[in-house]
Amino acid sequence: MTGKKLTGAGLRGQVAGETALCTVGKSGSGLTYYGYDISELAEKVSFEEVAYLLANGELPNKQQLADYKARLKSQRGLPQELKDVLERIPADAHPMDVLRTGCSFLGNIEPETDFSQADSKIERMLAAFPSILLYWYRFSHDGVRIETETDDDSIGAHFLHMLHDKAPSQLHIDVMNTSLILYAEHEFNASTFTARVCASTLSDIHSCVTAAIGSLRGPLHGGANEAAMELIEGMKSADHAEETMMGMLERKELIMGFGHAVYSEFDPRNAVIKAWSEKLANEFGDSLLYDVSVRCEEVMWREKKLFPNADFFHASAYHYMGIPTKLFTPIFVMSRVTGWTAHVKEQRANNRIIRPSADYIGPEPRPVPNIDER
Amino acid sequence: MTGKKLTGAGLRGQVAGETALCTVGKSGSGLTYYGYDISELAEKVSFEEVAYLLANGELPNKQQLADYKARLKSQRGLPQELKDVLERIPADAHPMDVLRTGCSFLGNIEPETDFSQADSKIERMLAAFPSILLYWYRFSHDGVRIETETDDDSIGAHFLHMLHDKAPSQLHIDVMNTSLILYAEHEFNASTFTARVCASTLSDIHSCVTAAIGSLRGPLHGGANEAAMELIEGMKSADHAEETMMGMLERKELIMGFGHAVYSEFDPRNAVIKAWSEKLANEFGDSLLYDVSVRCEEVMWREKKLFPNADFFHASAYHYMGIPTKLFTPIFVMSRVTGWTAHVKEQRANNRIIRPSADYIGPEPRPVPNIDER
Repeated sequence: MTGKKLTGAGLRGQVAGETALCTVGKSGSGLTYYGYDISELAEKVSFEEVAYLLANGELPNKQQLADYKARLKSQRGLPQELKDVLERIPADAHPMDVLRTGCSFLGNIEPETDFSQADSKIERMLAAFPSILLYWYRFSHDGVRIETETDDDSIGAHFLHMLHDKAPSQLHIDVMNTSLILYAEHEFNASTFTARVCASTLSDIHSCVTAAIGSLRGPLHGGANEAAMELIEGMKSADHAEETMMGMLERKELIMGFGHAVYSEFDPRNAVIKAWSEKLANEFGDSLLYDVSVRCEEVMWREKKLFPNADFFHASAYHYMGIPTKLFTPIFVMSRVTGWTAHVKEQRANNRIIRPSADYIGPEPRPVPNIDER
Repeated sequence: MTGKKLTGAGLRGQVAGETALCTVGKSGSGLTYYGYDISELAEKVSFEEVAYLLANGELPNKQQLADYKARLKSQRGLPQELKDVLERIPADAHPMDVLRTGCSFLGNIEPETDFSQADSKIERMLAAFPSILLYWYRFSHDGVRIETETDDDSIGAHFLHMLHDKAPSQLHIDVMNTSLILYAEHEFNASTFTARVCASTLSDIHSCVTAAIGSLRGPLHGGANEAAMELIEGMKSADHAEETMMGMLERKELIMGFGHAVYSEFDPRNAVIKAWSEKLANEFGDSLLYDVSVRCEEVMWREKKLFPNADFFHASAYHYMGIPTKLFTPIFVMSRVTGWTAHVKEQRANNRIIRPSADYIGPEPRPVPNIDER
């Protein structure tokens, strides 16, 4: 077969489809969801409004939002069979793998048997993912079977409540809200593209999301916020940070949390989460982690003209809220499921199966040798 | 961002990477695995030899094959936690969703924590998938907890043995062997491409295979053999088949099992499975389903110049062996896991994250309205 040779690997810069959901890095910066700038959304609306926007194409009015939140709130409970499954996953499992199995099993007991059910299945996943994650986490780590049906007003509060066993402060609720907005959608990134390839076979919504979770799990995709945490948690002062970074740069070591495949000037999500990280540091009463992060930012810009991406200041922000590092990427899932599923619906609405070609670099045709002659 | 506009949707004809594994449809027909023609492989070797070939790039010698088969044989057992999970999946679940969860859960309790473990994890999946499928199937449908550790010599025999509770005939073993060879590998089809996109984030092998199962589940990809069965099982004679087909063509209804996205002249797998279907019909003592299939083939060629693909005669062949229709696509998984995982290893060996671009067709930048003004 003949195929047009691509100039770069990884389909970089190659258009693989159309989307109305998102623009990333127009003129080197900027991120919009359905035309709304991410910075303005983060300042003015709730994550639930963004989730509604991604599902429906428009922001909800008061009544629509109230109905939507009530539906989400009512779907936080987990069936006993699902709890049984989660209780059989060991404490040292990768939490992303727990969500992958949890999502897949949800599709076993509550399958999407017709595409007309998509919206209700999506709402169920959005409501249940924090429950799945925390039910497993608390059972495997603390030996308790938590109640996942809380009356918290938001998904972020629900998450923190189950994690810490108490209602979170308003500041923490606000930070979670912003964080979930920032991570909700990002065009044809690898996990979203995985979901769209899966959707293009007209598979069900749980298959698409399960596949996307598997892709986001990879260290080149999700997980940069966890890597950033590992980097900064060993730093004892801003000067120590500077010393560490300079040493790493000299040894040409990979430094996670800086630069971006698409943004060339800055990551519009960074300023937003950085500001919240500073507020959290003040509330926490120990700004070390924030100060260290700021110095890392300065060094990387001065030495390499590299800017922090969305992940870098998320590390300190999450840490100040008492979130274990291994749950950082799963929060990404709790948010991005809105973007993934919006892309699945978009793919279904104008579908052709995604089936590219390959350049063959293998052996020439050859006869099968008898087993005695191998 | 600027991206080169593609001429077709679904990346059709666009090169998305390189592979040494397979050629599909060179000069309109033909299928090779590492340079070996599929027809010759189907005639001369066992599926285990093909699996070894796809994992290693070369066919095994006698000792290598004996060791490989012994390793596979020793890994058919399922841990109790996995059985517990399978017992909680209802009888009316989609069997592909069962394999999706089974694979994901296997990754929870036996994770690939380092890429050096890839080969052993792949062997485990190859050995355990038939067990996972049949343990669930027999428990949910017959209420029995089967022993999955049998001493059958091949994967095909192991599958049939667990399904029918008795050692299969040599003819049936041979047909399963051929069928698994035919389905093992097919270049950058949608499920394999899903696995490669997932692998490109450097995610683990279970994530990649779980994602691929989800893609293969879609009716535009796997499932054509099930659709073919549904088509032919209602036909009472060859003449009735002709009548039915002509009616469907007249009403422009979609007829599954014919034509192919890549092959333009014929599907090289069809002649192979068609011959086995005829032998099975003779053994079975009732050739209705085979005769009906042959007439369908004649009508489609005469009226539309469309040829049967690999799936069409698989329907009658599987049916003659007493395999329930809903298990047809899962057999595809038992085989294709060899191709998927070979592609994952190939992607890892020369990786760049797969992240294409999209053409934006959404709203222009707009300010966020106050909730009272929506």
